[in-house]
This record gives sequence, structure tokens and C-alpha cells, in this order.
Amino acid sequence: MIGNDAIETGMIGTARGRLQEAGDERPEVRLLPDGAYRVQRLIRFSHTDPAGIVYFPVYFDMFNGVVEDWFTHALGLNYASMILDRRLGLPIVHAECDFLVPSRMGETLTMGVVIERLGRSSLQIRINGEIGDQVRLSGGLTMVTTSLDAFGPVPIPDDIRAAMEAYDAACRA
Amino acid sequence: MIGNDAIETGMIGTARGRLQEAGDERPEVRLLPDGAYRVQRLIRFSHTDPAGIVYFPVYFDMFNGVVEDWFTHALGLNYASMILDRRLGLPIVHAECDFLVPSRMGETLTMGVVIERLGRSSLQIRINGEIGDQVRLSGGLTMVTTSLDAFGPVPIPDDIRAAMEAYDAACRA
Amino acid sequence: MIGNDAIETGMIGTARGRLQEAGDERPEVRLLPDGAYRVQRLIRFSHTDPAGIVYFPVYFDMFNGVVEDWFTHALGLNYASMILDRRLGLPIVHAECDFLVPSRMGETLTMGVVIERLGRSSLQIRINGEIGDQVRLSGGLTMVTTSLDAFGPVPIPDDIRAAMEAYDAACRA
Amino acid sequence: MIGNDAIETGMIGTARGRLQEAGDERPEVRLLPDGAYRVQRLIRFSHTDPAGIVYFPVYFDMFNGVVEDWFTHALGLNYASMILDRRLGLPIVHAECDFLVPSRMGETLTMGVVIERLGRSSLQIRINGEIGDQVRLSGGLTMVTTSLDAFGPVPIPDDIRAAMEAYDAACRA
Repeated sequence: MIGNDAIETGMIGTARGRLQEAGDERPEVRLLPDGAYRVQRLIRFSHTDPAGIVYFPVYFDMFNGVVEDWFTHALGLNYASMILDRRLGLPIVHAECDFLVPSRMGETLTMGVVIERLGRSSLQIRINGEIGDQVRLSGGLTMVTTSLDAFGPVPIPDDIRAAMEAYDAACRA
Repeated sequence: MIGNDAIETGMIGTARGRLQEAGDERPEVRLLPDGAYRVQRLIRFSHTDPAGIVYFPVYFDMFNGVVEDWFTHALGLNYASMILDRRLGLPIVHAECDFLVPSRMGETLTMGVVIERLGRSSLQIRINGEIGDQVRLSGGLTMVTTSLDAFGPVPIPDDIRAAMEAYDAACRA
Repeated sequence: MIGNDAIETGMIGTARGRLQEAGDERPEVRLLPDGAYRVQRLIRFSHTDPAGIVYFPVYFDMFNGVVEDWFTHALGLNYASMILDRRLGLPIVHAECDFLVPSRMGETLTMGVVIERLGRSSLQIRINGEIGDQVRLSGGLTMVTTSLDAFGPVPIPDDIRAAMEAYDAACRA
Repeated sequence: MIGNDAIETGMIGTARGRLQEAGDERPEVRLLPDGAYRVQRLIRFSHTDPAGIVYFPVYFDMFNGVVEDWFTHALGLNYASMILDRRLGLPIVHAECDFLVPSRMGETLTMGVVIERLGRSSLQIRINGEIGDQVRLSGGLTMVTTSLDAFGPVPIPDDIRAAMEAYDAACRA
């Protein structure tokens, strides 16, 4: 339907205002827990658009890179080897992101990962991009562990599940 | 929390199975209405990943291009001129997509737009990617009409609102 | 070596001036012949950088798409099928481009292809991006026909060579 | 012209063979000097194509990032501040690259910069991508120092020229 009842937003870049304007009821996003794995990402010239802010699909590409680093460095599972040698893929079945505060070339985002849901053959994670105590963006990815040979989903292998459960526990500690 | 109670998915590429596995309750996605504006997008070599399917951030980049074409050709508002001359931007405050069926190089997606919500200074749309009567992906974008000079949100100008209301009516006819 | 003897350029966007400043001796680039295959490419928001002009790597990505369209529509060889079914790839061993005049969002480039050299297992082409009678950019790609199974070069198959020779003749007619 | 006299290449990934096949006369590329600034670049899933090797335009995007890091960390000139505050841009007027050996997901390239020519308002650099003592790719960029306000070339400012001359001397030491 078409409605004109939306509450006007405040300054662009204030999360609550914009999410309300967008009719989004969710509570204010939270900073990642101390235990979460984090990586730094410099915002480059190539990430930004004619308005000088990061072009939103770039964040989803960054998410994929953060997942690679999280597997390799936090879970202790080499991502490239999982794909190329083990032939296990993680196709994305759902992706979403709230873009709360725009970021500009030269800024450095701290991006981190928490597990939201670990299913039998699917994984749901949240990735925040933060600068200091400000959440600039907060996204979610849902992946399905998939055989790249059979091209169908497979249960999350025990070693990967164990690493994820240990990671999740560390984030909640 | 960590749960192992998820229902196993069916073949990769079956939407319901995967959305259930992902714990997603939403009803099966629907095809776009006949009145919706549609564009064709050829899946190119550069869109696909080592697994041979479209790399998911590419779809969000395609969405931005579909919005450009929708403004210019369906709403009758030249998108480039809106940005460059009118200095009116449409930063994305929320983006999401369900990737239901993977697509491969050489396939041609039909992508179309419907308006889901028209606020005072925000617009929420749905974009489907379809082949025949199969919905391959279904995404949502929420944009805020923004002054590129003042860098804050502005109410949707009357001419743009009128074009969007007329488009929405045509989709529902 | 370090030299300060360069001739100052004229306005940015004047090819000769900038190529001279760059110490480039090559003659002024020429428009494509009438017989060359051409495609239109709209410059989108996502192609342009914070300075409002196309980010140069985007042109190389466009070149790859132009080659796809050239194979499929000018040579009559379906590009996706050549890669996926015939398992014949065309990895790029050399790429170059002179960026003569910047292009902006909303402009439409006409991009076309001519064959510069057809070797036993390599192909060298030139791709221009033109608007009206102005060459905005002129690039070159050298590809090697490669077996995606053996992962080594193979002679250009006879049907592809015949199509390229016929195309080349048509461009010179 | 069309010629069939090319020397057949060796295995894909052997530089001399492929450059000869491509009719390229230049001598074998050389490793960067010890004094050159270098950065590491992990090859990610998103950089690679359906053949499993890096999609060539990605290297040109990497080059732009290497130039940013080189300015900020080797020349001591903050790249983002040069663009955003000083309003000095470096549009590329020429780019080229020889792709000598393909690289795959999970490999880490060492990319480094040497100055080839420093003109009055232009800079020509070479960027190699190396793994161990193997040059995987070798590219060249020519940039023109440009006022982002006047949108025309300007002489390289004295502080930038001095930093580049010092860098060049260090590379040759």
C-alpha cells in the first residue's frame, strides 16, 4: 500500500531516524561483543560513489571477504582450501544489511562476526561495520554448506560445527 | 542460540527448503505482477564465481542499475540528471535479498520492480529476478531521498511521488 | 629516469595533449571502421568514482562484456557455450587502454571491436569506446585460446578462425 | 593484418612463451628492486572467475589500491586527504598489464611500485605482482595530476615531486 504517515528522519546517518522512516521496528543495533573476531577494512577510492560514500554492494563484497578471514583466522579452517580442496562451498541464500551511517574514503571500518543461528546445514551470521563505538552498518548472511561436486547441501561437517560452536561460546563469554 | 533442530533443505535451488532451513517463515515468493516494469539482464562471465554461479553482491549492483532504468524508463525521470543536475540522491538504508535459485553465465534474468512502501522521504521497493515463471531471487531496497548538497533527507518531491503513485497503481491494475 | 622536460598537457580530456605529456609517441587514435561490430553501453552510477568519471578498471570489465557480445552476435559463436560446454577459455595475457576523454554517468558509449592480429593460438583485438566522432578510450586485449581441461593453450579452432577471418575482412571492406 | 606465423606458446603461465605468441618483443620482465615499496594482497574468492583464476580487471582495481597505499605509506602523503581535502586527483590516462602467470584463490601476491617516468604533471609507474621470485603480472599506469575543482591538469606539487624523487632514488640505491 501507499502511506504518507512515516515519521520524518533526522540527519542522514542517524540510525534510528532512518530505520523508523523506513518503517523498521527493530531495536537499535548493538556493538559486537568483545569476544567477536574483527578485521580492519580501509575504505578506498574504488569503494566510494559520486556522492563520496561507499557504494552499498561493496559492503556485501566486503562481507564475503570477512567470512573468508573469519574461517581462516578465527575458526582455523583455511577458506580457500575448503573450497578448492575439500570442495565444500557456502552459497548465500539470504543477505541483508542496514546502512546506518555512511562511510567515506580514508576511514577504516572494524568489521566483525557473530553467529546468530547454526542449523544442520545452514549458518546465519551477523557482520557489523563499526568505527569506535558507532555501528556504521549491520548485516546478516545465511549460508548453506554445499557440496561443489554433488551441488546440493550437506550437513555442516563435524570439525566445522565444533569450531563454530567454540567460536560462538567465546563470543558469549 | 545454537540449535540443531533445523529442517534439512532439499536440493540447492529450491526456495522453500532453503528458506525453511534458514528458519525463514515468509510465504513462497510471488512472481511480479503483469504491470511491473521489467528489464533483461544477461549473466556474464564476470558475474559468476569459481562455482560457476552469480556472486551474490553482483545482484545488488544489478539492483542499482535496475532502479536507474526504472526511474528513466518507467517513471520518466532521468536518473543521471536527478543525481547530477537536481542533486537529489537515493542512498540505500536497507537492502536484502533471498537467493532462491542460482543463475549461470549465459542465462538472461528478467528483473522487475514493485513499490512496497512510499513514505514521506523514503521508498521501499521489491526487485525480483525471474526466468520464465521461476523466481530466481527476490530482493528489497529501502532508499531515502537525500539532498546531495545539504546531505540530509528531503521529502520525496511531488513530481517523483506522483510518478511513483501512478506506477504503483498500474502495477495493481 | 626522472625528467622534467615533458610538454604540459592541455585540458584534461584532450587526447593528444595527455598522451604527449605521458611521453606517448603513438599517432592519434582513429575511429572504428564502419564494418566493425558495435554495442551501446550506458554509463551508470556504479561505474563512476568520487570525481564523477568512470573508474578506469570498469572499462576493462566492459571490454570483457563486449568480447562476449562480439563472439555471440558478430562471430555467431555463443560465448557462454564456448566456455561451459566446449571448455574453451580466452584468458587475457595482455591488456592496455588509453583513456582519452573521461565519461560521466548518463552518457552512452558506443564500443566496438577490430582484430589487430590473429595468431596460431592467440588473438589481439582493439576495442574503442566512442561517442559520436570522439574516441573516448581505445584499448587492446591479447587472448590465448586455452583448454579449460588441459589448462594449456590450443590452436584457435577452425570454425572460430574462419569466423574471425570473415569478421576481419568485413571490417576492412 | 592476419598472420599465422606466430610461434606456438608453451604452457599457459609461462611468460616468455605467451608474450612471444602475442608477438610481444619486450625482454623478460624483471623483479622489483629491493628498495621498492611492497604490499601483500590475498587473492580472494571474489577475485577469481569460473576458471578459478583472477579475473583480469581485478588486477587494475588492485593497482589503484596499491597506489593509495604507496602514497600514504611510502611517500608519506595521505591519499584520501589529497583527493578530499587538497582536491588533487590522479586520473589514469594509460593503463597496461602483462598477465604472465595466473593466480588462484588463497595465494598472496606481493605487489610493489617503481617510478618509470616523472613528468611535469604526469607520473608513470610500474606495478609488479610477484610470488617469491616469480613475476605473476607486470603493469604500468600513467597518471596526470589534476585539479578536481578546475578539472584540468596541474604541475605535480613540489612536496609530491620531492617525495617521488626521494622514493625513486631509494629504489635505485
